[in-house]
Amino acid sequence: MTPRIELDRLVRRLETFNRIGALPGGGNCRLALSDEDRAGRDLLVQWMRERGMAVTVDAIGNIIGVRAGREDCAPVMLGSHIDTVGTGGRYDGLYGVLAGFEACEALDDAQHVTRRPLALVAFTNEEGSRFAPYAMGSLVYVGGLALDAAYAIRGIDGASVGEELRRIGYAGEARPGWLAPRAYLELHIEQGPVLEDEGLVIGAVEGITGLTWTEVSIAGRSAHAGTTPMHLRSDAACAAAEIALFVRRMAQELGGNQKGTVGRVELFPNLVNVIAERAVLTVDLRNTDAGRLREAERGLLAFLDRLAGTERVSISTRSLARFDPVAFPDEMVSLIEATARKLGLPSRRLPSGAGHDAQMMARLCPAGMIFVPSVGGLSHNVAELTRPEHLEAGAAVLLDAVLRLADED
Amino acid sequence: MTPRIELDRLVRRLETFNRIGALPGGGNCRLALSDEDRAGRDLLVQWMRERGMAVTVDAIGNIIGVRAGREDCAPVMLGSHIDTVGTGGRYDGLYGVLAGFEACEALDDAQHVTRRPLALVAFTNEEGSRFAPYAMGSLVYVGGLALDAAYAIRGIDGASVGEELRRIGYAGEARPGWLAPRAYLELHIEQGPVLEDEGLVIGAVEGITGLTWTEVSIAGRSAHAGTTPMHLRSDAACAAAEIALFVRRMAQELGGNQKGTVGRVELFPNLVNVIAERAVLTVDLRNTDAGRLREAERGLLAFLDRLAGTERVSISTRSLARFDPVAFPDEMVSLIEATARKLGLPSRRLPSGAGHDAQMMARLCPAGMIFVPSVGGLSHNVAELTRPEHLEAGAAVLLDAVLRLADED
Repeated sequence: MTPRIELDRLVRRLETFNRIGALPGGGNCRLALSDEDRAGRDLLVQWMRERGMAVTVDAIGNIIGVRAGREDCAPVMLGSHIDTVGTGGRYDGLYGVLAGFEACEALDDAQHVTRRPLALVAFTNEEGSRFAPYAMGSLVYVGGLALDAAYAIRGIDGASVGEELRRIGYAGEARPGWLAPRAYLELHIEQGPVLEDEGLVIGAVEGITGLTWTEVSIAGRSAHAGTTPMHLRSDAACAAAEIALFVRRMAQELGGNQKGTVGRVELFPNLVNVIAERAVLTVDLRNTDAGRLREAERGLLAFLDRLAGTERVSISTRSLARFDPVAFPDEMVSLIEATARKLGLPSRRLPSGAGHDAQMMARLCPAGMIFVPSVGGLSHNVAELTRPEHLEAGAAVLLDAVLRLADED
Repeated sequence: MTPRIELDRLVRRLETFNRIGALPGGGNCRLALSDEDRAGRDLLVQWMRERGMAVTVDAIGNIIGVRAGREDCAPVMLGSHIDTVGTGGRYDGLYGVLAGFEACEALDDAQHVTRRPLALVAFTNEEGSRFAPYAMGSLVYVGGLALDAAYAIRGIDGASVGEELRRIGYAGEARPGWLAPRAYLELHIEQGPVLEDEGLVIGAVEGITGLTWTEVSIAGRSAHAGTTPMHLRSDAACAAAEIALFVRRMAQELGGNQKGTVGRVELFPNLVNVIAERAVLTVDLRNTDAGRLREAERGLLAFLDRLAGTERVSISTRSLARFDPVAFPDEMVSLIEATARKLGLPSRRLPSGAGHDAQMMARLCPAGMIFVPSVGGLSHNVAELTRPEHLEAGAAVLLDAVLRLADED
């Protein structure tokens, strides 16, 4: 009996899970290490245990459920994350975890025991919306960030990763990295428009864009909005506005796949009749080319230098995250392409503009990613959607590729 | 015995009062109807009663302490407000109230009973930082805003004026406007640089700038910062930035005393890796010329119209406050000039760029304002400062002018 993905079962599990942190108008909010994240973790662990998996939580909260193989050798790891951004969709992360779960269930139904064990993983805090950097769980897992340093990181609400992990009961005993996989495979929605635009179903991800997150703090001078002459102001809000528009302009001028976003701005005291004394904002710069990313970073810093003079403010910066672009090994990209071809699904190679846990796991083992189309390219949005037939196609490619890796000699 | 201001006593009272809502690095936060505002009110009422004044709180929370005169006729009203902005200074508002108190004390010391009663007032919510519009207490007092409408106004923290007045125990019994004064005199710091620049001590305020507060809401589309092509974005943060810079540019181009400020901006979801879906910001436009203020308002609306198209966002506006410029009667301006001359204090006429309770009281009776210099023109800032000799000079002019009005035939 050949293992087969059951779409209905997968969709039902997605729906059940997405009741956790559901937003009134659709979409989900399960910020990392929140009560909603805990509820999601509890449900996942319960489902894993019901399937007979051996569940381990490591010290950064990564959840790994192992389905035993015929041999006790390095497993094939598959999964993604279950946390979301503040106004997240239903599939970003969760689809990869639950499609992995569906793959295991399909193998159970077919009474197929793979040679290698399978390790289904949900990594902690992939989004980074509450705690920077993103992909924190996988980064700690591969040794790219020390556990103590991760625990000490404070989120946008002032709470620390360590405190919150203990509070929700997911500061586990296992050492992050305890299980060294043969390979890591992550199925994810594209979160961009390329596959849909070209009428394709499967993306074989070649690599992940490089990224820099910079927090910029501006100190101006608060003063009365009605009495302070325009030419004597040190207005932190105007300086912040100049930065937001510069970041967009620079990304447009650099072209290629350069992205630039100011998504977060806080003014102080933030009152209608007071010139802003202080502004704190974040700049998100991305490029798949390491050299061009560095060029954008230099462009930002040079602009901030000039701006401090023209706006009569002082400006300081702090790095929240920085990752060079990652290329996945051809072994993995080719496997995904071949699997799509075998299943008759039109595919292409493409880079990922978003960061993913696979980008970190690539430091530890051969890693690969499978993309399926996002309607309208929309993501990090409550209206995020992937069509059922594409959910099914992605899960089928995942299952087949995992089998190839897990049963190979 | 001639009544005389005692500077030490005035400074001591200012210091004692400013322990309420003191900020760690200096300055004060007594936002309207907060616990700190209540503590300030309690202290003022206590001091008034200790001086033998008859204290009345009206339904919008204005506190009026009456010092009886020889005749039971229309009183001379003097005072200002005790609330502050979020990062306020030590003198904005409070100086006018406590200098009025000092004037009454000086009259007591000299056993001088004026012909008319004196009415010392602290108006509710002059700043408008928490609840718009500003000068709410005096506006309701003169019948410019209905009591029910004022009660229903919600502040930046969601609480309503009515709820908060009741919570702090200052929703009084008296009908706002119950006491119709012969005249209203308000002593205040300039909050601008003019008097200091010209080496003057007293400003005889000719009138108050007109003002418009507009709340602008921008609806874009939230999307992933790493995967969404630059040219396909509807970024509410960039639209907000364009508005902040337009407001400044327009004020600079209109010139004269046109001011334009974006002091408050909120983004949603306000996360590093999510293109902002929504932005809400405020625009503060001021001009002493009614026609030019209208021109600036039209300029803003026309810009917003164009911006909605170029930024692919929808934009809506809501008026938070609008007041035409006010001219004080020459009787009052001349009285202040003459008093300064009599006391040997260099003075000039000047307009006020800030709004004040006197602007509302001008609808009810002859109103006038006395300004003293602000060091560096700084205000709505914890470093706000007026030199002791200027505090004394202003109080002396207030006392003398009040005597003139209260003892006239």
